[in-house]
Amino acid sequence: METLAEVHHFFKKGHLDYRPCLTIDCAIFGYHDGGLQVLLIKNKIITKWCLPGGFVRKDESLDRAATRITAERTGIANLFLKQFKAFGDPGRNDPRGAFEPEKLFELAQVKMEEDSWLTGETVSVGFYAITDIISAIPKADFLSSECAWYPVDKLPPLGFDHDGMVRDALFAMRMHLYHFPIGKNFLQQKFTLKEIKHFYEVMSGKQLNASNFPNKLISLGLIVKLDEKRKIGAHRSPAYYKFDEESYEKALKEGLVLA
Amino acid sequence: METLAEVHHFFKKGHLDYRPCLTIDCAIFGYHDGGLQVLLIKNKIITKWCLPGGFVRKDESLDRAATRITAERTGIANLFLKQFKAFGDPGRNDPRGAFEPEKLFELAQVKMEEDSWLTGETVSVGFYAITDIISAIPKADFLSSECAWYPVDKLPPLGFDHDGMVRDALFAMRMHLYHFPIGKNFLQQKFTLKEIKHFYEVMSGKQLNASNFPNKLISLGLIVKLDEKRKIGAHRSPAYYKFDEESYEKALKEGLVLA
Repeated sequence: METLAEVHHFFKKGHLDYRPCLTIDCAIFGYHDGGLQVLLIKNKIITKWCLPGGFVRKDESLDRAATRITAERTGIANLFLKQFKAFGDPGRNDPRGAFEPEKLFELAQVKMEEDSWLTGETVSVGFYAITDIISAIPKADFLSSECAWYPVDKLPPLGFDHDGMVRDALFAMRMHLYHFPIGKNFLQQKFTLKEIKHFYEVMSGKQLNASNFPNKLISLGLIVKLDEKRKIGAHRSPAYYKFDEESYEKALKEGLVLA
Repeated sequence: METLAEVHHFFKKGHLDYRPCLTIDCAIFGYHDGGLQVLLIKNKIITKWCLPGGFVRKDESLDRAATRITAERTGIANLFLKQFKAFGDPGRNDPRGAFEPEKLFELAQVKMEEDSWLTGETVSVGFYAITDIISAIPKADFLSSECAWYPVDKLPPLGFDHDGMVRDALFAMRMHLYHFPIGKNFLQQKFTLKEIKHFYEVMSGKQLNASNFPNKLISLGLIVKLDEKRKIGAHRSPAYYKFDEESYEKALKEGLVLA
């Protein structure tokens, strides 16, 4: 929705294209050398930071909807995405009574209708995505005033039920670290073991006291040593590694046990 | 729904109590010495085996709905339950064109209405449960002719999108084996290491070539050795273990890494 005409159409006729009860919310995690961040938008109605999200179109799968919504906010078409949990408890759309639907319609300059398709109870399917921060170009939507990265350990209190969503998304992502390969889209094509260890430390949010992740990746054939070394100094030239495409894709599909 | 009057009310006025777009489906896994089983119901309309499920009441949480639905099918009030995935792709309610809504209304002896709340597209939230087979008393519902256990490795082709649901439920449950303690409700109060190893083998569906699960449970303080041994023979008296309540509940809440 870019123009006011599109917004009007969405408010008045959106139920023809979208499923009224079904939304998606996305915790987009940004990998950054200094720590893990998450992309937030500032909701104009409740004036709180929230996760980006949106309604699901009638003709699209949940995965497709999550891809579309994350692409709209980051400019990246094919983020690494995983569904982590559905949120459907009664009252979740407005746990603190902060949401005033009148304001929503006022913002769109549309006359509010009591039985609008936009104001019913929804179930929201939570997805998390991972990207490197450098590739993403955050972009607010019509209902938000800002779109920005926040460190996951320094988040402001979020609107709706999104505090719990971030907590659950982080938990799921950190569990999945042990069962799916990650990193192919965020690390340089070739990297040292130290770099991939640091990557896992940022993602897991803890110091790893051994190189168990890199070593397991090697033993499973997910990363392979190259005939090339990084030249740091006379006595320091660690070997480069790269991901093995075939093993990586297979593991991404079938899962594995990394720990 | 036990009586025809209740069924009539559900068909005609169910939308007052239930959320029309939101259902729950449950893969109830039954632990059995000989292997893992899953509870199926035979749907009277499409005459195929399916997972048990149902609509979510407007006043209940997703967890509560799953507890209610699994209790109705097993007779057990508080099964170990975990949400694993939401299913909401277009056409999922009828992927093979096998569902004839007329038959549904015929069965309930209710005049079919074109815009019935029962025939719209739904998103279904998948939960898996674990129980021991002995404690459960399978019970069919109004829309099913049978309710029975099937070995997970010998399932008939299921109706709707339930083949994929069982696959995803198994995958999630087996991933969760590494991150949550299980077994407290299915093993005897005291057990040997061999018994708990066998339990993990049944749940994971594979031979474990070492006692890594039991050993990790010990090192994390989740199971503790008792001053008591099983007397099998003169030279065979393995020690008994039991779960440590406090560590168990904490790990269930916070997660862990077992591998």
